[in-house]
Amino acid sequence: MVAAGFTVIRVGESVWSTWEPEPGRFDLEWLAPVLDAAHERGIRVVLGTPTYAAPMWLARLYPEINVRRSNGEQMGWGHRQEIDYSHPGFLLHAERIIRAIAARYADHPAVVGFQVDNEPGNEIFHNPQVFQRFVDHLRHRYGTVEELNEQWGLTYWSHRLSTWADLWTPHGNAQPQYALAWRRFQASLTTDFIGWQADVVREYARDDQFVTTCIAYERPAVEDEAMTRRLDVTSGNAYYRMQDHLALPAATEGSQAWMTGGTWALFQSADRMYGSKQAPFLVTETNATAIAHQWVHETAYDGQWRQAAWALVARGAAMIEYWHWHTLPYGAETYWGGVLPHSLEPGRVYEQIAQLGGELRTAGTAVTGLVPDAPVGLVFSDPTKWALADFPQLATPDGEGDPRTFQRIADAFYRGAFDAGLGVRVLHPEQLVEREPADVVASQPVLVAAGLTILDDAQLDWLRRYAQAGGHLVLGIRTGYEDEEARARPDRKPSHLHEAAGVWYDEFSSLTQPLEVVGSDALPLGPGAHATAWVDGLQTTGAQVLATYRHPHFGRWPAVTTHTSGAGRVTYVGTVPDAELGRAVLAWAAQTSGVDAGWRPQAETQTSHGARNAAGEQLRFVHNWSWDASTFTLPVEVVDLLGGETLAAGSVLELGAWDVRVLREVR
Amino acid sequence: MVAAGFTVIRVGESVWSTWEPEPGRFDLEWLAPVLDAAHERGIRVVLGTPTYAAPMWLARLYPEINVRRSNGEQMGWGHRQEIDYSHPGFLLHAERIIRAIAARYADHPAVVGFQVDNEPGNEIFHNPQVFQRFVDHLRHRYGTVEELNEQWGLTYWSHRLSTWADLWTPHGNAQPQYALAWRRFQASLTTDFIGWQADVVREYARDDQFVTTCIAYERPAVEDEAMTRRLDVTSGNAYYRMQDHLALPAATEGSQAWMTGGTWALFQSADRMYGSKQAPFLVTETNATAIAHQWVHETAYDGQWRQAAWALVARGAAMIEYWHWHTLPYGAETYWGGVLPHSLEPGRVYEQIAQLGGELRTAGTAVTGLVPDAPVGLVFSDPTKWALADFPQLATPDGEGDPRTFQRIADAFYRGAFDAGLGVRVLHPEQLVEREPADVVASQPVLVAAGLTILDDAQLDWLRRYAQAGGHLVLGIRTGYEDEEARARPDRKPSHLHEAAGVWYDEFSSLTQPLEVVGSDALPLGPGAHATAWVDGLQTTGAQVLATYRHPHFGRWPAVTTHTSGAGRVTYVGTVPDAELGRAVLAWAAQTSGVDAGWRPQAETQTSHGARNAAGEQLRFVHNWSWDASTFTLPVEVVDLLGGETLAAGSVLELGAWDVRVLREVR
Amino acid sequence: MVAAGFTVIRVGESVWSTWEPEPGRFDLEWLAPVLDAAHERGIRVVLGTPTYAAPMWLARLYPEINVRRSNGEQMGWGHRQEIDYSHPGFLLHAERIIRAIAARYADHPAVVGFQVDNEPGNEIFHNPQVFQRFVDHLRHRYGTVEELNEQWGLTYWSHRLSTWADLWTPHGNAQPQYALAWRRFQASLTTDFIGWQADVVREYARDDQFVTTCIAYERPAVEDEAMTRRLDVTSGNAYYRMQDHLALPAATEGSQAWMTGGTWALFQSADRMYGSKQAPFLVTETNATAIAHQWVHETAYDGQWRQAAWALVARGAAMIEYWHWHTLPYGAETYWGGVLPHSLEPGRVYEQIAQLGGELRTAGTAVTGLVPDAPVGLVFSDPTKWALADFPQLATPDGEGDPRTFQRIADAFYRGAFDAGLGVRVLHPEQLVEREPADVVASQPVLVAAGLTILDDAQLDWLRRYAQAGGHLVLGIRTGYEDEEARARPDRKPSHLHEAAGVWYDEFSSLTQPLEVVGSDALPLGPGAHATAWVDGLQTTGAQVLATYRHPHFGRWPAVTTHTSGAGRVTYVGTVPDAELGRAVLAWAAQTSGVDAGWRPQAETQTSHGARNAAGEQLRFVHNWSWDASTFTLPVEVVDLLGGETLAAGSVLELGAWDVRVLREVR
Repeated sequence: MVAAGFTVIRVGESVWSTWEPEPGRFDLEWLAPVLDAAHERGIRVVLGTPTYAAPMWLARLYPEINVRRSNGEQMGWGHRQEIDYSHPGFLLHAERIIRAIAARYADHPAVVGFQVDNEPGNEIFHNPQVFQRFVDHLRHRYGTVEELNEQWGLTYWSHRLSTWADLWTPHGNAQPQYALAWRRFQASLTTDFIGWQADVVREYARDDQFVTTCIAYERPAVEDEAMTRRLDVTSGNAYYRMQDHLALPAATEGSQAWMTGGTWALFQSADRMYGSKQAPFLVTETNATAIAHQWVHETAYDGQWRQAAWALVARGAAMIEYWHWHTLPYGAETYWGGVLPHSLEPGRVYEQIAQLGGELRTAGTAVTGLVPDAPVGLVFSDPTKWALADFPQLATPDGEGDPRTFQRIADAFYRGAFDAGLGVRVLHPEQLVEREPADVVASQPVLVAAGLTILDDAQLDWLRRYAQAGGHLVLGIRTGYEDEEARARPDRKPSHLHEAAGVWYDEFSSLTQPLEVVGSDALPLGPGAHATAWVDGLQTTGAQVLATYRHPHFGRWPAVTTHTSGAGRVTYVGTVPDAELGRAVLAWAAQTSGVDAGWRPQAETQTSHGARNAAGEQLRFVHNWSWDASTFTLPVEVVDLLGGETLAAGSVLELGAWDVRVLREVR
Repeated sequence: MVAAGFTVIRVGESVWSTWEPEPGRFDLEWLAPVLDAAHERGIRVVLGTPTYAAPMWLARLYPEINVRRSNGEQMGWGHRQEIDYSHPGFLLHAERIIRAIAARYADHPAVVGFQVDNEPGNEIFHNPQVFQRFVDHLRHRYGTVEELNEQWGLTYWSHRLSTWADLWTPHGNAQPQYALAWRRFQASLTTDFIGWQADVVREYARDDQFVTTCIAYERPAVEDEAMTRRLDVTSGNAYYRMQDHLALPAATEGSQAWMTGGTWALFQSADRMYGSKQAPFLVTETNATAIAHQWVHETAYDGQWRQAAWALVARGAAMIEYWHWHTLPYGAETYWGGVLPHSLEPGRVYEQIAQLGGELRTAGTAVTGLVPDAPVGLVFSDPTKWALADFPQLATPDGEGDPRTFQRIADAFYRGAFDAGLGVRVLHPEQLVEREPADVVASQPVLVAAGLTILDDAQLDWLRRYAQAGGHLVLGIRTGYEDEEARARPDRKPSHLHEAAGVWYDEFSSLTQPLEVVGSDALPLGPGAHATAWVDGLQTTGAQVLATYRHPHFGRWPAVTTHTSGAGRVTYVGTVPDAELGRAVLAWAAQTSGVDAGWRPQAETQTSHGARNAAGEQLRFVHNWSWDASTFTLPVEVVDLLGGETLAAGSVLELGAWDVRVLREVR
Repeated sequence: MVAAGFTVIRVGESVWSTWEPEPGRFDLEWLAPVLDAAHERGIRVVLGTPTYAAPMWLARLYPEINVRRSNGEQMGWGHRQEIDYSHPGFLLHAERIIRAIAARYADHPAVVGFQVDNEPGNEIFHNPQVFQRFVDHLRHRYGTVEELNEQWGLTYWSHRLSTWADLWTPHGNAQPQYALAWRRFQASLTTDFIGWQADVVREYARDDQFVTTCIAYERPAVEDEAMTRRLDVTSGNAYYRMQDHLALPAATEGSQAWMTGGTWALFQSADRMYGSKQAPFLVTETNATAIAHQWVHETAYDGQWRQAAWALVARGAAMIEYWHWHTLPYGAETYWGGVLPHSLEPGRVYEQIAQLGGELRTAGTAVTGLVPDAPVGLVFSDPTKWALADFPQLATPDGEGDPRTFQRIADAFYRGAFDAGLGVRVLHPEQLVEREPADVVASQPVLVAAGLTILDDAQLDWLRRYAQAGGHLVLGIRTGYEDEEARARPDRKPSHLHEAAGVWYDEFSSLTQPLEVVGSDALPLGPGAHATAWVDGLQTTGAQVLATYRHPHFGRWPAVTTHTSGAGRVTYVGTVPDAELGRAVLAWAAQTSGVDAGWRPQAETQTSHGARNAAGEQLRFVHNWSWDASTFTLPVEVVDLLGGETLAAGSVLELGAWDVRVLREVR
């Protein structure tokens, strides 16, 4: 580890049955030699609490904590995260082991921080006790069944309640209002649980130790923004498909799921983590060797590890931890490959990661405390994500509802910015309304608000004020359609925003085939630009039409419009843009907003990202995502942070296969 | 509504919890102002009973009425139609609210009729109490277990019963005889429930008020022919895919499910409704805006609403009601679009429907009491549909059993007639055996009996007598293969019919790829004619061979044969014909039967349908299903019922994009 | 039957409710006339015990014997094989009926043998009583929970047990060690049940009567090698897709499942049966007419029945029984077609099978007691099959784990040998370790050991000794990766074998697209040779490289290597070969091992297989699997066993469409 430049390890989570082999019998000493050895070698330690995998004796004593599915079926045991962690019996035992571990090791000099639990929010709990708490939650929120009947519109289909005991369980539910309340409640259970654990650990932690958890962002019951408010720093997993999935130009569309596909999606993972607290973050887990399903082994090509790691650093990662050091010989993750293979002999993976270790040591503090360049803001909303997962509005290719409806819309714009060479900042509605619009305009002169069907009045008004304050607001489909109860708003759409946008609509249509979009002098488009999945029936009331559909019916409505509003501008994109349309719209939006055009990629195999480090220096990260070499002509003088040499403006960087260069501008 | 020409509304169903907020507390007055207002404006009202959505207090008091799946799992609450409506506890409460509503409003002058329940038969009830009634039903039908053992052939696989208590539940059943009895029993529960409700309402209804229910024809537990015998008039839903799904020539094969795809399938929906009672019918629901899954929004192109409405009228619709007036802001059907959008501002949809309202007012009584022209009869059997759904004989493209086996066979012939420009009358075996064959020959000189695996001896004999009486009987695969207990008949096939057909078979084969069919002088075929899915191994015993397969093995058997029989003819089609083969066979059959060839479509984008109105006048409905205009040269003098002008024979109708003309022949 | 040459029938299984209509009331006489009539006509009888379909009164008396799924759900009744046959209550009743039938009929002169039960092992029993026996089984095997914790590596994810009561049920299990133990245990229940039945029957059987069961090899809980040790002879089902699925060259890849697809797979079915006991076998069921799902009817082309039957005989079949004599008019298998159709009139199928009956009578004892030629051995392992079914390592085309991972690897090599014209002997690891390696080398000079992830140390060592003894060992991916507990071995791979192979690897990769493989002078390859699904990252330590990948990353590793080892050779194939690569590797291996190249197919539509009969004579079976005729020039003088004529060396056999010739060499 030392030879490969490892400086931090994470230990102790997932082994409760080792910490506490029988109820109340604690065995805490086995870890001490590990921590001591790490300390001697200058390796710091993140210490985990073990609550995400309950011991089998606890399962035996409290069978009711086993997660139940909506049909009442028990999830069973033998995996992990099968626990209703809102259950008092579970919490009693969890608190006891957390306190025991924290008390024993908080003082150890190797320990730099704590991770409470791991990847929480993996399950929706349908246990009867959880449902009863949900009913109480609704009772406290709405007061009376009459109020709930009114707010949720329960007249239709005869769902008016006569008493709280009438409320049906989620199993057969078909009401969007109910579904959204249920999802909000489930996420709050996770936030409460993690926040509670953090508070317990803080009773023992030193001031120089942080408390965090490891976030798997796709978990169904996690609200990263609210949860990280209870933590000192954001930590997250960045799992990505390797080999040709990282190639540019991309052969496939890619996807942003727990394991991402596509270079753009790897960057988006990092930007999501930065967005949780608008601050640098820790990568608690990322690909060592093969990951995931044991029928997917895609160990990287030479060079791809450094590329991915520097990409994460460029977007704000303050730590990169590989999952995991050596590959396990047994258990469910036998083929989740570590830095060392099953033979435990260092090999190609180790060598590749050791090279990176050396580079990070060389770069040192020049790459810490980064604020990534991000002229484009993208609004990401968990309640919208949930609402459109349970009641999708886009179709999958085989005609089913797409549970990733929101992400698909947001991704189209993220990828547009990525393809246009523009960094993106992920922002949450809850963060925005706490800030002055002008403040956001200063850092993100372009702000994309697309697919956001669930926004309350204040959030919609804030978007309007952003444009008035000089920002370029890019609206997409569904934004401003529903309110915080998932009720369709009873006015013309986009509600609260159509006057600023200079367009409204009452009608929309699905598309089962992509539809050609024709540009204009203001927004020239290549022949590849298409609308996908959806068309809003836009009626202009002052907006300039930038692009239209080539179709006898849809051609009556504009595809893209723009309209000045106060000191800024509102652009409306009435469809889910394909790659070319997304790139063109974002490039145009950045240009009209005066975003600096320097340091854009100079080959279609390249990316270029900027950031400012803690010293205020401008860094540049130029990648070549291909087997084919490419060149990059430097716009200004730079220092190569890994090679050490100074390179004059106009000199040509040679980028090899799957290569990356880390540069500091000399000003 | 008045401005748009609306003359009827449907109210009151689905809101039991509003009618009766707590057990026994009735709130009946809220509807009075609505009915009064309708009456003042000349709008008539169909009043619904609310039984298809039970109030939650009833669910709480009688948890055992919640529908159970075959594995015992409860369906849950929160949707609608989760009720075992054969349960006495449910019926007690249902009767109380039905009587209360009917007693309160039957005298209201606006009320022209009643709809009891809504879209019944949506579920198969696996509740224990229902299974016990099924056992009693079998006991009453078969008398002894010995008789059941014999009739169902239970020796095999050791299923002989020693007592009625031995009967297994449907969950693990693999016997077709059991499955068919179960489906018949389930459908009878629906018929009993609707008939009972109708009888209760009739105690209050005036003589000028009708009683009906709204039929969704694809529901698994509905037998439309038997159920409508208990009602005054047939009412049904016609939901169809819009936009390019209505184009001719059709880009896709289309389908006939709860939401149809394809122009032919829209017409078939209407012909199914006419067939229930062999009489005009009400369309209780049809597309206003987007329908169905909220990820499918296909609001029509301009013109398509009038096209669809006139198509329904041409096939016997006496009323067209849109579902629904305005789009709901909450609940499961938030994106099931009404005439008004969420903003409640009249828009394009409203304007299009208002145009139609004006046309209907203009046409007036000239388009009422229609008997649609239908030279081709098509036999449709619910028991066959059920038998082939549970034990399919055709495969889907991915190799699974196709639960729509019967419909796929019948559709192939329906579409053949449609493409040949021939109107179709849907007829049920139960209706046929009540009529003299010669009577049916007079109205339907061609009768298709294809896919009818479940027919009893009398039904098979009736088909034979139809040909003898001068009809042209077109037989397809599976007809006459099994008896009413789904037992394979122990003689050569088609049983009861092979002598009349002049062909028999003992062998058949699946086809996984379409197989070329070669015509003859008597039946010339284009190169596109293919057999699909199935080949019967026909042996001729006197029949003339009309078409053969081009294949070293299948080529030994004819594809299509014909044989005179008595005063008529029996044609056998030994496969599922593709579009070209189906069209050719039906066109030839119509021609040999002397069906008038006038008024056939004159462009591949057109359809032409005829009907006689109540005054005995011959109407013509000519559609152009395309963005491209087309022309139609009139064979006789007509009056344009919408424009009012008289047009001479030989004059040329200009049909625009998505256009329709409604004409009356002048004789 | 007599006219068609039938000499044996199978009766009596599946009708327990007829044998014993009520508990303890036996009705045994109904079969006597059948046996008498058979005996009078020289037809022998295999008498079945009826235990695979329990009577419904037994289901009523012992509801707990109904198989439960992992989630606790009952399988239900109405099918067959719904029984936990390890349950003492079931066994009590089973023993009573078995003894009654055996006692009554064992002396009947027509009875030549007994079949106990039928196609056992169809279900995994999750019944609570079975789980408790599993826990006891583990307790007896491992002694203490501490030992189990250690052996299964239960530290991870907090699964260490504190007591046996802590063990979780399989429902939620994610540990491969647990899963494999569970599958082994389930298979042992089947072996115990069949062995117990055989022992009971043997108390009644005469010395000249055999005891067997009918094996469906794809059943999840059957271990054919262990089970047939308890029986006198192997019996199995050979169901195969007909029509174009038997064509050569093959249009599709084919598959080896309960119903096989492809000519190679039909031969493999037979070789699997021979492999169970390394001896001739009975085919208890094979295609008469259409089989399987009732939406798949693929009755053979003329000639295909004889082809398939002679193929089975060539590979050791001593009996061919068609399922079944006449087609049933009711029940689940109504469309599982027999020799006679539903009309019971003999037709094409009968005529085709009667022709075969005559041929078998003509060939007589010349085709009995066959030892099929098999220069290539293929190691088949049930535990590996189970381990890779529950934790797959190859992906299906749609990205899911392939539960047939092991079979897919093994099939690739089987088909390689088949395409190279080489007979294959299936061998089980348990059989191999009982034999001297040199003995196996003598009969199978080439031995393929591919995909065998689950092998213990002794089995791996035996493979090494096979090469040292002069054999040509062909290793494939995964062999030697895990141990008998499905733990990844902690050394370089292939463990125990990498020194003999002269290659090792620590790394591997999935392939989602086929990868071109380039041959060498030693192993020339056509342009069609590709790697599929997987690449091992081979590092040579002395081996000769025979083929490589054309790829910038994978090209660093060889695809195929070979290395001398002792008196023999180890060849390593680091991927799943496609058809061309598999054929080339096996052809080369056979050639280097001095396998006789005579009697190979002379057209791509042909196969040629050899065998020695009981008299030691060399037989030859030459097939033409096509509509197109082909010729075969005889390398030596032969007698045509069916025609009777002697044909000189060099004369040309004319093979018609779907033809086969059966020859005896004249030496």
